[in-house]
Amino acid sequence: MNKIDSAGHSIHFETQLAPLTDIIKSGKYSKIFVFADGNTSQLCLPLFQELLGDFQAFDLIETDPGEENKNIDFCIGIWKTLLDFEADRKCLMINLGGGVITDMGGFVASTYKRGIDFINIPTTLLAQVDASVGGKTGIDIDNVKNMVGAFTLPQAVFIESGFLKTLPKRELLSGFAEMIKHGLIVDQDYYKMLKKSDYKKISSDAIYRSVEIKNKVVTEDPHEKGIRKILNYGHTIGHAVETYSLIHDKNPLTHGEAIAIGMVCEAYLSSNNNNLSHDELIDISNYILTTYPKYTIKEDSFTDLLAFMKSDKKNENGQIMFSLLSSIGTCSINCSVTENEIKESLSYYNIINKNIAND
Amino acid sequence: MNKIDSAGHSIHFETQLAPLTDIIKSGKYSKIFVFADGNTSQLCLPLFQELLGDFQAFDLIETDPGEENKNIDFCIGIWKTLLDFEADRKCLMINLGGGVITDMGGFVASTYKRGIDFINIPTTLLAQVDASVGGKTGIDIDNVKNMVGAFTLPQAVFIESGFLKTLPKRELLSGFAEMIKHGLIVDQDYYKMLKKSDYKKISSDAIYRSVEIKNKVVTEDPHEKGIRKILNYGHTIGHAVETYSLIHDKNPLTHGEAIAIGMVCEAYLSSNNNNLSHDELIDISNYILTTYPKYTIKEDSFTDLLAFMKSDKKNENGQIMFSLLSSIGTCSINCSVTENEIKESLSYYNIINKNIAND
Repeated sequence: MNKIDSAGHSIHFETQLAPLTDIIKSGKYSKIFVFADGNTSQLCLPLFQELLGDFQAFDLIETDPGEENKNIDFCIGIWKTLLDFEADRKCLMINLGGGVITDMGGFVASTYKRGIDFINIPTTLLAQVDASVGGKTGIDIDNVKNMVGAFTLPQAVFIESGFLKTLPKRELLSGFAEMIKHGLIVDQDYYKMLKKSDYKKISSDAIYRSVEIKNKVVTEDPHEKGIRKILNYGHTIGHAVETYSLIHDKNPLTHGEAIAIGMVCEAYLSSNNNNLSHDELIDISNYILTTYPKYTIKEDSFTDLLAFMKSDKKNENGQIMFSLLSSIGTCSINCSVTENEIKESLSYYNIINKNIAND
Repeated sequence: MNKIDSAGHSIHFETQLAPLTDIIKSGKYSKIFVFADGNTSQLCLPLFQELLGDFQAFDLIETDPGEENKNIDFCIGIWKTLLDFEADRKCLMINLGGGVITDMGGFVASTYKRGIDFINIPTTLLAQVDASVGGKTGIDIDNVKNMVGAFTLPQAVFIESGFLKTLPKRELLSGFAEMIKHGLIVDQDYYKMLKKSDYKKISSDAIYRSVEIKNKVVTEDPHEKGIRKILNYGHTIGHAVETYSLIHDKNPLTHGEAIAIGMVCEAYLSSNNNNLSHDELIDISNYILTTYPKYTIKEDSFTDLLAFMKSDKKNENGQIMFSLLSSIGTCSINCSVTENEIKESLSYYNIINKNIAND
């Protein structure tokens, strides 16, 4: 159980980076770059170097941490840095960090000189269970998430729980939301197992199971024409809330916190429009609201949130499209919902939030 | 003889855009965008609209003409325009113009929301015989050509000689250089035929033959790992001269004029390093120097030119790599050449230029 085969590459688990050392030592690459942010270069690079052992001949490209820097200006900076380093098409880029680093590093690599090889070493729980599989790379434009990007596969992915030790609890919780989603959309037993577990002590087995689920879905539909859209459960509303929070809140929601809100709202829509039972709606709502901090979606943000949803990549012909549950463990794609229903679901989150607080 | 099948799409010749009308009428697309520059929207759009007939429901995205605008700032502008138009993943972008439009339009389309469909209608001879095949898209960064881009195939390509009627002679000559190259690298008979022809009256058959040659090469090696590199003949030095001229000359060289110079220099290198006969070197030099205007490569530009060559995408391990002829119609890849030899070849161009002028 130390490898999952994905399209054209492998995802390695808990190998202490041994296969990476082999790849580097093969001499296939003219130069090695490690792309990291200020946080990961401080917290994760030492472990990376320790695991690599003798081999230390790489150049470090460092960027500022945070989603707000996953933009085209930083991209241009990295392209120019590679050019300054005289990086040719046979160089390798190792992305060491969270989703911002793997998304942006993957995009930079897949477009520099029309594409150089890259390897992802996700160092956050979120990046390990979500960004690590599926070949999505991207950057934000005008605060619209992943508005520009490509589908490009890394040469390999390495998942090492050692990197998670440096992670604040809030970041663990952020990744945990995607794991809950994996249970909700395809695996009721996994969801039940997660409910019994402690997000602060995630097992390697649970991470493996999440990667396995995501890998199965994206392998079936690499370019998101159909079934892959189930992975967007919680994300249509969640992304909008995340974008709004990033612009307006002093201490913005993490991705997972926003997706957790989105999953409650979209469970409500699932119950209204896709036959999710009332009991399961309450089960999901309760579990998420007891696990994640409370948030209030302001009434006067509803119009902005709808505007963000309208620019969602999943939409077709101007219709906001949802992936909705029909039961815990089963998800349907391409569900259309009215704007009024969306507003209702936001109010549901606000109200049930208060109810639980009053319990 | 009205279609060439390329990887996953067709190149249509002289069809009066009939298959395009069918594609649009199929209703597969949520919205149609036509991407053009100030020149092509004035000179080519009327013919485009005339050929399309009834169907006129598209939005025009216009950019400034010229290679100097094939940059990331204009890209960002187009991405944002698509966003403003609420373009979803099911929209279609039709690139109507020369290589700048098809290169940049293709890159924008292949990265907007991780990829929308696009169709190329090259309206210059250069774009028809060169940019139309092979799936290369790209933009320049810091005046370094196509430093960022992707390999992405269009849905279809339409080649209509009607568009060439608006083209200045200098632009015809620019495209003609690539046709000469096609003859030089793989087809001696085609080269001889071109020598007897008049570049101002290019036949549809010749354009077809050039596209056929290029298509055969890129189909065999889509990602430029091997044989495709023969298409770079004349381009290692040619690109450097083009970049230098773009920065320093009041009236910069066209792409083809620069490639013509590159082909003479690289014929010299071919004769020195790859067994091209002296007679063939003289044949190529004479033909190009009688067809293209004379240019002087200034001695004090040699250092800059070498620096540009060092950042060429084809290089490996810091070595400047050439594709060199062994005879007219046969080309070898991955030839390395010393800096002194490169300088000699530049001087050869300058000297033989003068000799012919003195004839």
